[in-house]
Amino acid sequence: MATTKKKSSIKAEELAKEQKQVSVSEFFLKNRHLLGFDNPLKALSTTVKELVDNALDACEEMRVLPEIIIQIKPAGENRFVIVVEDNGPGIVKKQIPNVFARLLYGSKFHSMKQGRGQQGIGVSASVLYGQLTTGKSTKITSRIDPKHKAHYFELNINTLKNEPEIVTDKEIEWMNKDHGTKVELELEGKYQKGKLSVDEYVKQSAISNPHAQFTYISPLKEKVMYRRATKELPKEPKKVKPHPYGVELGMLMRMLKDTSAKTLEKFFTKEFSRVSPNVAKEICKKSNLAQSMKPKEVSHANADAIFKTIQETKLMAPPTDCLSPIGEEILVKSLKKEVDAEFFTSITRPTAVYRGVPFQIEAAIAYGGSLQADNLVRLLRFANKVPLQYQQSACAVTSATVNTLWKNYGMQQSRGALPSGAAMLVVHIASVWVPFTSESKESIAHYPEIIKEIKLALQGCGRLLGRYLSKKRKVADAEKKKSYITKYIPHIGEALKDLLSLKETDEKKVIILLTEELEKSRKM
Amino acid sequence: MATTKKKSSIKAEELAKEQKQVSVSEFFLKNRHLLGFDNPLKALSTTVKELVDNALDACEEMRVLPEIIIQIKPAGENRFVIVVEDNGPGIVKKQIPNVFARLLYGSKFHSMKQGRGQQGIGVSASVLYGQLTTGKSTKITSRIDPKHKAHYFELNINTLKNEPEIVTDKEIEWMNKDHGTKVELELEGKYQKGKLSVDEYVKQSAISNPHAQFTYISPLKEKVMYRRATKELPKEPKKVKPHPYGVELGMLMRMLKDTSAKTLEKFFTKEFSRVSPNVAKEICKKSNLAQSMKPKEVSHANADAIFKTIQETKLMAPPTDCLSPIGEEILVKSLKKEVDAEFFTSITRPTAVYRGVPFQIEAAIAYGGSLQADNLVRLLRFANKVPLQYQQSACAVTSATVNTLWKNYGMQQSRGALPSGAAMLVVHIASVWVPFTSESKESIAHYPEIIKEIKLALQGCGRLLGRYLSKKRKVADAEKKKSYITKYIPHIGEALKDLLSLKETDEKKVIILLTEELEKSRKM
Repeated sequence: MATTKKKSSIKAEELAKEQKQVSVSEFFLKNRHLLGFDNPLKALSTTVKELVDNALDACEEMRVLPEIIIQIKPAGENRFVIVVEDNGPGIVKKQIPNVFARLLYGSKFHSMKQGRGQQGIGVSASVLYGQLTTGKSTKITSRIDPKHKAHYFELNINTLKNEPEIVTDKEIEWMNKDHGTKVELELEGKYQKGKLSVDEYVKQSAISNPHAQFTYISPLKEKVMYRRATKELPKEPKKVKPHPYGVELGMLMRMLKDTSAKTLEKFFTKEFSRVSPNVAKEICKKSNLAQSMKPKEVSHANADAIFKTIQETKLMAPPTDCLSPIGEEILVKSLKKEVDAEFFTSITRPTAVYRGVPFQIEAAIAYGGSLQADNLVRLLRFANKVPLQYQQSACAVTSATVNTLWKNYGMQQSRGALPSGAAMLVVHIASVWVPFTSESKESIAHYPEIIKEIKLALQGCGRLLGRYLSKKRKVADAEKKKSYITKYIPHIGEALKDLLSLKETDEKKVIILLTEELEKSRKM
Repeated sequence: MATTKKKSSIKAEELAKEQKQVSVSEFFLKNRHLLGFDNPLKALSTTVKELVDNALDACEEMRVLPEIIIQIKPAGENRFVIVVEDNGPGIVKKQIPNVFARLLYGSKFHSMKQGRGQQGIGVSASVLYGQLTTGKSTKITSRIDPKHKAHYFELNINTLKNEPEIVTDKEIEWMNKDHGTKVELELEGKYQKGKLSVDEYVKQSAISNPHAQFTYISPLKEKVMYRRATKELPKEPKKVKPHPYGVELGMLMRMLKDTSAKTLEKFFTKEFSRVSPNVAKEICKKSNLAQSMKPKEVSHANADAIFKTIQETKLMAPPTDCLSPIGEEILVKSLKKEVDAEFFTSITRPTAVYRGVPFQIEAAIAYGGSLQADNLVRLLRFANKVPLQYQQSACAVTSATVNTLWKNYGMQQSRGALPSGAAMLVVHIASVWVPFTSESKESIAHYPEIIKEIKLALQGCGRLLGRYLSKKRKVADAEKKKSYITKYIPHIGEALKDLLSLKETDEKKVIILLTEELEKSRKM
């Protein structure tokens, strides 16, 4: 017993010595697969993706038609230099080191607004990975207008502190560029053609961003220019306040503590969407609290009462104008540009809500043409217009697709599998906060509301495909029947001639008549 | 043009105002699905899992046989209080707030040692979730030996700062407990029976921890006692230093900067496993660097040379004694205790390495008995003895299982699916650092080395199962043949009697002889 006693306290002391804080940089350095850096192939496309996401977001913030240049240059064995340049607003000098060399830093985390980046991790993670695998600094050039020179930085991340280390900081000339940002990053990677390639990533980005122009130069120096399918900028997504239904008790308590509103009534109307002064009064009354109560004085029990009241209060659904889908027409137009098929259809669902967060699903189907008939269908997944290339099996989009009964729409499907046939499926989720299953943002979490909407969108497209296929089949069947009958009409004619002792001319008449009747019945 | 100019710099300034640091608590609060808190059902089992992981790790640190008490008490609509108590070494007072109410804080992150917890996130995330959904503090009681009273804390997390907020802090009596920790946490959750239930989690934990005793009281007040299958503690996992092959250039550069070693030679022998003084000398020589060089003076180019030299230097594989698998025999014993089947087999593979990190795969198969024959097989996944209940489809274990040709071993299997039949498969990965695909630690990343080892383990078990099944089938076939022939022997006898004009006694002799021959051939 004595030994146990000693052992426990000694062990507790020993453990205490080892317990310490881990910086978020160190955490993600060790867990870099969480950020999409599992292997050199994925590292290359993840980095391109993060840089392009930021470039597109920047351009859309400024409402300019994006012109993105992506170049990947080989730099020795298993090494590449990635250069991504945009025509966005640029980044002010002071913020450049933070944006690129500090994890969990950004403008998008706290806002409820549809965007590609949302966590303030992506680009810094790429910088971290480049530094880890090559020891090289990341080079950033950014210019905010023609009146100022461009700023040029070379940056590392101090992982122990999660802070930027500035290696170089100077002003430079940037010819022919009034504003924009260019990032140059060296990393260990692998380039390969195929479904998971950077080439494919850029192509899919062109599909989901029909308003953007991409110039892509692959490591093999192939230059591909993706021209825009439309000169119209997508609708500007609006920031929204949280909807009361999506706020949990603990969050409500924190909001009450943090608000600048002076009264409970003002707190509701100011901090939430869809709470009018009348509704705010109603919530106060039902919770037995004064409208004039100071939010900071609301106790735990009070907050609990408010929380319950909210759940019982009828509220308008979150505003739907905050989202910017691709759009049915433009999605089909964009697909037609990149996919050789004979039938296209697309559906944009109305806005729906998960956990108080508005989201919107779009789906499209391309069928036939050069698409292969004997394989499982290709499923393209997009979130806020960003292609998702990895983790397909873990994604809510895949589950929803697998659990749609494609046989109803004239397609083959084995239990628990994607349908097979000459089709390509496209699913896009637009949301002010896409619930990804990991920081690498490759698959969508299985919220029932999201799965339901995806299924509805796919079913909608499926029905149209089904109708097309059944019509196609009917035409084919009729053609077959016709050709069959056509073949026998002369024999019937001959037989009738013998039977009824017709003249040659009559026989011809009969044949013409029969052929005409056949044609008529075909058209009915 | 003038408007664009203005727009870009104004936009850049606007964006700069919004760019700010996000605390890791805020990050995970918003991204709580990353930590396994997607929905109330999962939140309940994730919390139990995190608490039990910590309890088991604590007991094993101290080398005591774990006695874990798990109780889930209903606390109003959709709310539960979870209580988990262990007999580990306890936690020193000063560290209790940090361990439970600060994310990315712990003893396990920096050590290369097999353990259940590894990131310093899990328990604090549960505290965060409880606070978010119920506004309640988490209660911790901990005692490090009988000489001291127990410490009792009530804690919240300040999410803006990622710091503990101490609500209560006092010394209390803890009857009948010399040392250990008890955590009491209220949260919004959902209790449900089935494969994804807490009940199932505890049962599987009992399978993978045959040395532990679990007392489980469900929300329905059902009490289940899982007794240990062995009184032997598992081999103590040892800490290991990183293996040179697994260290990337950036990491090497940081290690050179941080080391306390005075010379390059000492740096290699001190900071790495499997580098003898001779090998260290060889690396220095091949890299054209002096052994006596100060590590801090190694330049980027030097580090690059060292890195390349390491890849070309022959090194022993990482030490294999650092891992603590369940063990073939004990795994079968443990399975027999919980699963009603007729055939059991298990294989523990030798240690292997991914990215310089040692790991070891174990697999087991239970077949027949009460296991259902007409469904896909049940696949139990474990990582460092922790059951993985969610994200099965995203897991390397699942891919490896699906891509094993089970038809070779007498089982049914559709393309791209798990095999079907009356079997249960078990796969366990033990590693000093399990590469999970997300912080919720529910699925293993697809490292080719890991997938290969899983397949080898499953194939090993599969061959034994195949042999068993083919023997079983042979016996069944022979039985069938025998019964068939037995049925006809009298007729043969009769026919021979007529044909050869035998006597009645001869006929009987023939029948006996034929039956004997048949028996003999069956035994061959």
